[in-house]
Amino acid sequence: MFKEIFDNVREKKPLIHSITNYVTINDCANIVLACGASPIMAESPDESAQITSLCDGLNLNMGMPTAQKTEAMLLSARAASRKNIPTVLDPVGVGASSMRKNTAKLLIDGFDMAVIKGNSSEIKTLALGINGNRGVDADFDGGEDVTALAKSFAKRTKSVVVVTGAADTVTDGERVYLIRNGCEMMSRITGSGCMLSRLICAFVSANPDNVLVSTAAAVCAMGLAGETAFERMNDKDGNASFRNYLIDAVFNMDGDTLEKGAKYEIK
Amino acid sequence: MFKEIFDNVREKKPLIHSITNYVTINDCANIVLACGASPIMAESPDESAQITSLCDGLNLNMGMPTAQKTEAMLLSARAASRKNIPTVLDPVGVGASSMRKNTAKLLIDGFDMAVIKGNSSEIKTLALGINGNRGVDADFDGGEDVTALAKSFAKRTKSVVVVTGAADTVTDGERVYLIRNGCEMMSRITGSGCMLSRLICAFVSANPDNVLVSTAAAVCAMGLAGETAFERMNDKDGNASFRNYLIDAVFNMDGDTLEKGAKYEIK
Amino acid sequence: MFKEIFDNVREKKPLIHSITNYVTINDCANIVLACGASPIMAESPDESAQITSLCDGLNLNMGMPTAQKTEAMLLSARAASRKNIPTVLDPVGVGASSMRKNTAKLLIDGFDMAVIKGNSSEIKTLALGINGNRGVDADFDGGEDVTALAKSFAKRTKSVVVVTGAADTVTDGERVYLIRNGCEMMSRITGSGCMLSRLICAFVSANPDNVLVSTAAAVCAMGLAGETAFERMNDKDGNASFRNYLIDAVFNMDGDTLEKGAKYEIK
Repeated sequence: MFKEIFDNVREKKPLIHSITNYVTINDCANIVLACGASPIMAESPDESAQITSLCDGLNLNMGMPTAQKTEAMLLSARAASRKNIPTVLDPVGVGASSMRKNTAKLLIDGFDMAVIKGNSSEIKTLALGINGNRGVDADFDGGEDVTALAKSFAKRTKSVVVVTGAADTVTDGERVYLIRNGCEMMSRITGSGCMLSRLICAFVSANPDNVLVSTAAAVCAMGLAGETAFERMNDKDGNASFRNYLIDAVFNMDGDTLEKGAKYEIK
Repeated sequence: MFKEIFDNVREKKPLIHSITNYVTINDCANIVLACGASPIMAESPDESAQITSLCDGLNLNMGMPTAQKTEAMLLSARAASRKNIPTVLDPVGVGASSMRKNTAKLLIDGFDMAVIKGNSSEIKTLALGINGNRGVDADFDGGEDVTALAKSFAKRTKSVVVVTGAADTVTDGERVYLIRNGCEMMSRITGSGCMLSRLICAFVSANPDNVLVSTAAAVCAMGLAGETAFERMNDKDGNASFRNYLIDAVFNMDGDTLEKGAKYEIK
Repeated sequence: MFKEIFDNVREKKPLIHSITNYVTINDCANIVLACGASPIMAESPDESAQITSLCDGLNLNMGMPTAQKTEAMLLSARAASRKNIPTVLDPVGVGASSMRKNTAKLLIDGFDMAVIKGNSSEIKTLALGINGNRGVDADFDGGEDVTALAKSFAKRTKSVVVVTGAADTVTDGERVYLIRNGCEMMSRITGSGCMLSRLICAFVSANPDNVLVSTAAAVCAMGLAGETAFERMNDKDGNASFRNYLIDAVFNMDGDTLEKGAKYEIK
């Protein structure tokens, strides 16, 4: 099944509109190209909705927000909704400021999010309205609690919810994929999370009728790329080389490799 | 001839002011350094004209436009015109929104562009006012038609026009360079086009009396770097490594390598 | 001593808030992670002070200024001052525009800067109010003059002042570290200076009671990483690979390597 999903990405080459932070914007564009999709960025309220209406999917990444980008996100979310293409929300550091919390609330309450992906702190902030995560890193490692929280949040929002961590949880509120791909090195670069949400957006946009499984496939693909990249490291390599190897690994992955390398259980 | 042009870049080290998108901004700065020139970025209307007036060339890249950047581009284009330094326009995704079309029109109608570089869709949009390109990729592969269109557009704008594609066309409206350097892999990274326009700007700024030939030399240099980078790839490398190899190849290129490796005919 | 300072960075993992240019923002985030600290970016006046108040250090980089970012810098500088965490100022290209000069003046006159780091042109502009540096590169190579200027500027601002160059000067107005790590290749990539100021911020934030020595340690660490990266280069490598090797070298450095490799004299 993951094979077909990945093959669809490479065949359909979905065009992905992202409104995103500038820290990881280049890596995110390159990973979209690596998986076979095509990236476009536009963040002015003067054009964002028009750009979205040309695209197959929309990725909203809340890192480094500005008032202008927030307005563009809302206009693009509406355009995506009208065109019935999937929107993937990455609420980067949502607990770190009122501004980010307000933006996330406007987006989630106002529009359908096909997928919401965060670490445990970010999802907790969104689901419980709780403050207190420290920047963009996770502070909460939850096992069963995370699964229950993700399921109820998915039911409420009618979104597929992804909670990243030592294991990753993907759920539509009913079924749960528990995914064990990936490696610790992925937390030593900036952008692992951003690249994952972009990959999810590409996978879901090429498989819009199968959001849950596409999302799980993208999470496995990203983790598997991390494993491949880590194996490739020599003793002089550090996080910069790892970053390159990670994108390279997605470039060289195909449906069969993904199918074989994916480590998950369905609950 | 290309040798002298490239040698001039390394010797004169022109300072290149760019107003550009954030996706490829780092790669573009590094390729400017790789070829021997020096990059500076400034995009606030409060300083852009002042910065331009310190520089040897101006590169305007229309990816990710904002109202503020558009205003800065217009102020800088005027400053470049007053100082009589070349402006190179890269109308990224110009067909994708009204905002981009309006900005391109203001720039081209209001100021002298030494060079306008785009893919066939972008040049078609500018030359014919036709809509319909899908994002930033080309949708039009034209052979003879492209050449005729580029020539008439070059005559009308008094600019050197570059149309990138399987083969690249460079013309001042009279002479035509048809260039066959490059490789398909260049379309699998973000920024090949942006880096090319930055390289053109560096080459033209160091050779302002020879815009057509300098532009052709830069197009050959970029394509040749692509070929060198592609040859260097091993079976684990993907688009991230290719991107690094591409910039490395420009860094290690010299006038002689360029002279020998350039593949073009003059029509 | 440098060993303890670096060990503290890896142990305390300080969270570093940066308001910065977009050219080098990704490299800067990755070098923060490479040294063991954690990066966060926020540049909207609507959230910047709130983000700063979660952090252990603030890094203000004046490349690519906008009116909005300037406002965010001032709000964050005040928040840092209130929380008593160190602010590190990198006045990129300060001589190139009135806007940058005004911003630097507002920051330095209004708030305590733990460290101010620039090349000789930038520090000369700040210390003497002199115009005329050409972009972001140094135009002034000063030996004894630089040391005297840096000392008097450090006394006046009560900051540790760093002047980068063939040798780097670090002073609190009394003691002077003259540092001879580094290599010429570092000037052939964009971001060496930006990454250095980020590294300084990480080191100082983990050692806030020892600003002078922490700053000197960070300058040595950056230069040593440059040497390691340069030694790793093969004949196909250029500035793109060097950039990766530089970040990798910080990733693989530890307190002992730094202690052994640091080349400095105290005056």
